[in-house]
Amino acid sequence: MARVVVDVMLKPEILDPQGQAIARKLPQMGFDGVGAVRQGKRFELELDGPADDEALERVHKIAETLLANPVIENFEVRVL
Amino acid sequence: MARVVVDVMLKPEILDPQGQAIARKLPQMGFDGVGAVRQGKRFELELDGPADDEALERVHKIAETLLANPVIENFEVRVL
Repeated sequence: MARVVVDVMLKPEILDPQGQAIARKLPQMGFDGVGAVRQGKRFELELDGPADDEALERVHKIAETLLANPVIENFEVRVL
Repeated sequence: MARVVVDVMLKPEILDPQGQAIARKLPQMGFDGVGAVRQGKRFELELDGPADDEALERVHKIAETLLANPVIENFEVRVL
């Protein structure tokens, strides 16, 4: 049994109002030194079998069709 | 300038209906072999300076107070 992570982030050219709101709030809360914040999603998938090439290809397809919107988001598949 | 990631996931004992909905949908879409899915958040913070101990401690505080709800969520700080 393997665990795989899919990180989904908005593409750099897409505006991220949630991240901007956090970045703007930080100095008001006394936290300096953070220039920018981007907010994304993280999915943890538990595979029934090992994280071999075939399984990772399947996770890739899952990410593409269900977890991310490839028009505005990039994703990355990693084995934990 | 350093980039730091904060991963926020629901604690294992907290129900994750979003993850469950995805896990249930997968077989219907023809994707087998995934036992469970958990959905969380991922934040990328761009620091003005280096990711030294002091900066990471600050990011830890930011995660604790603004990015995660420590009652129901765990978080992890990583330097990219």
